[in-house]
Amino acid sequence: MLPWLLAFSLAALTGLSVGYGGTERNCSVSPPYVPGTAVNSTRQLRDLRSKMVPLGISAYIIPGTDAHLSEYIAPRDARMTFMTGFKGSAGTAVVTPTKAALWTDSRYWVQAEREMDCNWELQKDVSVASIVQWLIAEVPNNGKIGFDPFLFSLKKQEEYAIHLESSSRTLKSVPNNLVDEVWTNRLPVPPDSLLRLPDRVIQRSWQEKVQDIRKQMAENPYQPTALLLSALDETAWLFNMRGNDIPYNPFFYSYTLLTMNDIWLFVHLERVPDDLKAYLNASCTGPLCVQLRSYDSVLSEVRKYVNKPQVKVWIGTEYTNYALYEIITPEEKLMTTSYSPVLIAKAVKDETEQRILKEAHVRDAVAVIQLLMWLEKAVPEGKETELTAAAYVNKRRQEQKDSKGPSFETISASGPNAALAHYSPTNDTSRRLTVDEMYLVDSGGQYLDGTTDITRTVHWGKPTPMQKEAYTRVLMGNIEISRTIFPSGTKGVYMEMLGRRALWEVGLNYGHGTGHGVGNYFGVHEWPVGFQSNNIGFTAGMFTSIEPGYYKENDFGIRIEDIALTVPAKTKYGHNYLSFETVSLVPYDRKLIDTALLSPQQTQWLNSYYETIRRVLGPELERQQLLAEKDWMMKNTEPIIVATGSSLKVSSSSLPLLALVLTLIQSLL
Amino acid sequence: MLPWLLAFSLAALTGLSVGYGGTERNCSVSPPYVPGTAVNSTRQLRDLRSKMVPLGISAYIIPGTDAHLSEYIAPRDARMTFMTGFKGSAGTAVVTPTKAALWTDSRYWVQAEREMDCNWELQKDVSVASIVQWLIAEVPNNGKIGFDPFLFSLKKQEEYAIHLESSSRTLKSVPNNLVDEVWTNRLPVPPDSLLRLPDRVIQRSWQEKVQDIRKQMAENPYQPTALLLSALDETAWLFNMRGNDIPYNPFFYSYTLLTMNDIWLFVHLERVPDDLKAYLNASCTGPLCVQLRSYDSVLSEVRKYVNKPQVKVWIGTEYTNYALYEIITPEEKLMTTSYSPVLIAKAVKDETEQRILKEAHVRDAVAVIQLLMWLEKAVPEGKETELTAAAYVNKRRQEQKDSKGPSFETISASGPNAALAHYSPTNDTSRRLTVDEMYLVDSGGQYLDGTTDITRTVHWGKPTPMQKEAYTRVLMGNIEISRTIFPSGTKGVYMEMLGRRALWEVGLNYGHGTGHGVGNYFGVHEWPVGFQSNNIGFTAGMFTSIEPGYYKENDFGIRIEDIALTVPAKTKYGHNYLSFETVSLVPYDRKLIDTALLSPQQTQWLNSYYETIRRVLGPELERQQLLAEKDWMMKNTEPIIVATGSSLKVSSSSLPLLALVLTLIQSLL
Repeated sequence: MLPWLLAFSLAALTGLSVGYGGTERNCSVSPPYVPGTAVNSTRQLRDLRSKMVPLGISAYIIPGTDAHLSEYIAPRDARMTFMTGFKGSAGTAVVTPTKAALWTDSRYWVQAEREMDCNWELQKDVSVASIVQWLIAEVPNNGKIGFDPFLFSLKKQEEYAIHLESSSRTLKSVPNNLVDEVWTNRLPVPPDSLLRLPDRVIQRSWQEKVQDIRKQMAENPYQPTALLLSALDETAWLFNMRGNDIPYNPFFYSYTLLTMNDIWLFVHLERVPDDLKAYLNASCTGPLCVQLRSYDSVLSEVRKYVNKPQVKVWIGTEYTNYALYEIITPEEKLMTTSYSPVLIAKAVKDETEQRILKEAHVRDAVAVIQLLMWLEKAVPEGKETELTAAAYVNKRRQEQKDSKGPSFETISASGPNAALAHYSPTNDTSRRLTVDEMYLVDSGGQYLDGTTDITRTVHWGKPTPMQKEAYTRVLMGNIEISRTIFPSGTKGVYMEMLGRRALWEVGLNYGHGTGHGVGNYFGVHEWPVGFQSNNIGFTAGMFTSIEPGYYKENDFGIRIEDIALTVPAKTKYGHNYLSFETVSLVPYDRKLIDTALLSPQQTQWLNSYYETIRRVLGPELERQQLLAEKDWMMKNTEPIIVATGSSLKVSSSSLPLLALVLTLIQSLL
Repeated sequence: MLPWLLAFSLAALTGLSVGYGGTERNCSVSPPYVPGTAVNSTRQLRDLRSKMVPLGISAYIIPGTDAHLSEYIAPRDARMTFMTGFKGSAGTAVVTPTKAALWTDSRYWVQAEREMDCNWELQKDVSVASIVQWLIAEVPNNGKIGFDPFLFSLKKQEEYAIHLESSSRTLKSVPNNLVDEVWTNRLPVPPDSLLRLPDRVIQRSWQEKVQDIRKQMAENPYQPTALLLSALDETAWLFNMRGNDIPYNPFFYSYTLLTMNDIWLFVHLERVPDDLKAYLNASCTGPLCVQLRSYDSVLSEVRKYVNKPQVKVWIGTEYTNYALYEIITPEEKLMTTSYSPVLIAKAVKDETEQRILKEAHVRDAVAVIQLLMWLEKAVPEGKETELTAAAYVNKRRQEQKDSKGPSFETISASGPNAALAHYSPTNDTSRRLTVDEMYLVDSGGQYLDGTTDITRTVHWGKPTPMQKEAYTRVLMGNIEISRTIFPSGTKGVYMEMLGRRALWEVGLNYGHGTGHGVGNYFGVHEWPVGFQSNNIGFTAGMFTSIEPGYYKENDFGIRIEDIALTVPAKTKYGHNYLSFETVSLVPYDRKLIDTALLSPQQTQWLNSYYETIRRVLGPELERQQLLAEKDWMMKNTEPIIVATGSSLKVSSSSLPLLALVLTLIQSLL
């Protein structure tokens, strides 16, 4: 599933905005045209504005995140959606006494035009600079701009402050969320009990993890006395626990404050059953006893800790909200890094985690192969749609061992729908699948042992030459990243152009990121691993997606996504080099590959990948008694023959071969 | 000439420290051994420490830059050298009441051990984080760390402040430089008159440039009323003027304050002759009149301007010193971007600048070809050294039209000396050139129409297989960057791994940057163009060096450096794509190229580059009546033959060829 932040200029990118006529609002006619899919936001806006008056603020910012700066949020935290009607997963809304504006990226422009009424203007440049420019134009001199400090990371607050600093407008932290005050039917926190992971998927106990992190604290030259964990996956990882507070993401509302002698875990106490209390040693107070505290007490408890003498609290600036940051004063009591040591430790998988995450990918490949084989037969019969295909793959995954459902809403997109790169089908939009359109399916599963995420693009009829060229170049991008050898510690953002280069050669590109981390039963975007500019360098034992694409507006979309593990590479002269081992095991669509475009090295990589699929997936398909699927897989992993127009079968090739062939000709002449 | 900042992890890099026995100090023996090349720093340190006491500071930071944050500085600004004895061009010194430490990068470790006495410790991690860790250990709680605000950029000050913020130590701005107070024989400002460029090298008059910049100010949403220029090349570019205050860099001490109605130029007034005053319209006060002010009055004049109502001063954070920044208050009067609009405008060369910079490279190539041809003949005779070779190329350049001397001290390095990537020969170190060692020459010229910079590595005997492989892979890196096609706006740092990839494949790498901008009679490192992480995106009309390398400690060094212009690329489907046009025109050493390693595309690029050299340089060599040089050039630009072990001559090759050959075999069989 594709990450959207862009690491570089979009200057050469084709826009993705599409006009669908009557399904989108038209605010320039009188009266404005608003489709039935839009939400009437008049009441919310009126109520919110009435709350702004007593605070003396001239604007109020409503981010699309939660107090843990989560990328995906629970419905009860969907404040931006409540206010605007827009249901996309990324955006920022701003309300002034007379105006209301939503910023969202190109993935969501069409959706926003369908879901918002004309109270809202849509802004398309999502940079903080652009939001601030709008604010400077709308907010009077010396005006105050309100924000909920729980919904801003320290980093985000700084970004706004820097952009505002040469204007006379200032930010004002408003601790009570104004949207919550007017949101009468907001959902409560789910009552479900929290869960611990079974021993079979764990190598390091929570006690070992706590000791490892304490060791890092002790060795840090700034001598922090405590570590505050705010991101939901930090606490979940540390205690080997999971929950289900956010759709598709096995997280639970929580914070952790860890010192050398104490562990405070902030959760909704009624959700911790007795066995979990025992597991956490919740009845004692030693260094390896977890002291449970109410989720809502985190601010007061952290303040209490900070007030002690000689303490210093370590936080990560990317995931700690501003409300927690602003109580850690004076500044000698604060220590910051971009990411907490927990996120850094979590990024490198231990042996067990690597093994089971690869196992999850083997079972997951079975489900995707079942889908592709079934579609190949079913589509020509004319009865399948984007929705039935999505339901089919979700069902096949569900049948696999340790399945915990999909890891995100399946992107099942045919023809022009696939050009909306982040599209998921609804009853209104679902297209019938046909042999005349390309089809893109981006899906993933949650399993107790791992999270998967894979995209395949296929064509059941006759692709156009341009479709074939674009697909091949996307594949070349995927292969070039996958086969590259690089020094341990290299940041993905410095290599991701390899995913674009074959496209750039012919003036094509894509407007999304090239990959994100995944892990063991966590969110499908597991940062800070990946190819974004704020991701950490790759070291051995990390899992990332590799997912270049190409999207032709109103026509088709291509994405080829695999998960790969960073592994040590043997090199002739050096040491401490890495490469990628692809752990997604589903063949690409042969019909769409123009083998003449591939370099000998790319062909070699492809054939070696196909050999791996046969070796690993063959026995699994047999074990599951899926013999037709095995035949399908074998047929689709035949080695690629290099020379077109020749009956010679060459399973792999390289430059020395050319020399050999020339010598051969010479001896024949 | 190579830039040193690193864009990514050095984890896999071979260190470059070399022990030379008695030429380096040994502070661990008693009494300490200090070579004759070291400077006795006892008096300076004693004097400086006595100046620290009344200020109540526990440490004093001495950066290696000047008040304009110049990369290369005048001797009178070499405060770090005066204090330490160390003459390298990059470093930071810190003095406490009992300790003294110098931070410098791997280029200079050997040199520092030769030039410093045992009063100084050498620190090798040059990050601000490392300096601050040392400061935290040495400075007591609540201690103050003094710095000269003229020698810190705003950005650098922020970096120190951020790293210090969780400690109780604070920075203290000390406006009078303490080193200057104890530096009794410090040189005065040079008296030489400033110069204007002749019309033939100018397309835009200074008045046009001023109007262009004012337009940008007017269009900026933050509405700046003034622009303050601090970097020396900003003022030099704006007024089409040059000076000679810094060796190899045609700059003069200056600041500019530009508003919509006034232009204030801060220079040493006695250096402005009457004709220059007339050129600058220095006797009037309108929008296109330059009001001359004394260089030393910049602080008071800027303060006076800032005190006016409704003003806002735009500065670039990378090149504005902290002394100027700290007087621009309150913050509504300040507007910051990383680089001033002058640096951004200067980065894109106009048609004249492009044409004449290419012309300068044609003449420069003649001088380098003269050197290489001469060495080929002279070295086997056994009388030439690194020094005589450097003198030879400097002399040849001097003979070319519009020569203004070398653009930096020539790096002429044989065998192990070339592994010290930034080495320049001295009488002590100069090696005799022989057919048994590889030789690296990195040199450049200043010409009235352009600045050049080129590196070639050659072998006059029989290179080892490893030397040949490493050279070929460095060349592959150079070619891969040179031939790549990318969207306009792409940052170099996201593509520079192409320069490393062929090396990485076999576990090799290099520890310096991959390229820097150059321009028309300016400093040889013309930022912010290049491949560093803080460089701006490439657009058409920029010149950058491309210079991968490889260095084997105690053995040899390889670097292949060319200057290239960003030019529009025609692509099959897209528009707004760029590629590089190499404007350095000197053949590579054929003996060192293993053609079997090159891809067909690389061979094709190389042959096409050689065709360009023949086409452009052939007539120039004839014009200069250098017929032997022309023959040498023709011989060294013969097309590369792809197939080894075959007498077939193939001037370029690609994959379709392979298909053709296979078909051919088929028909023969």
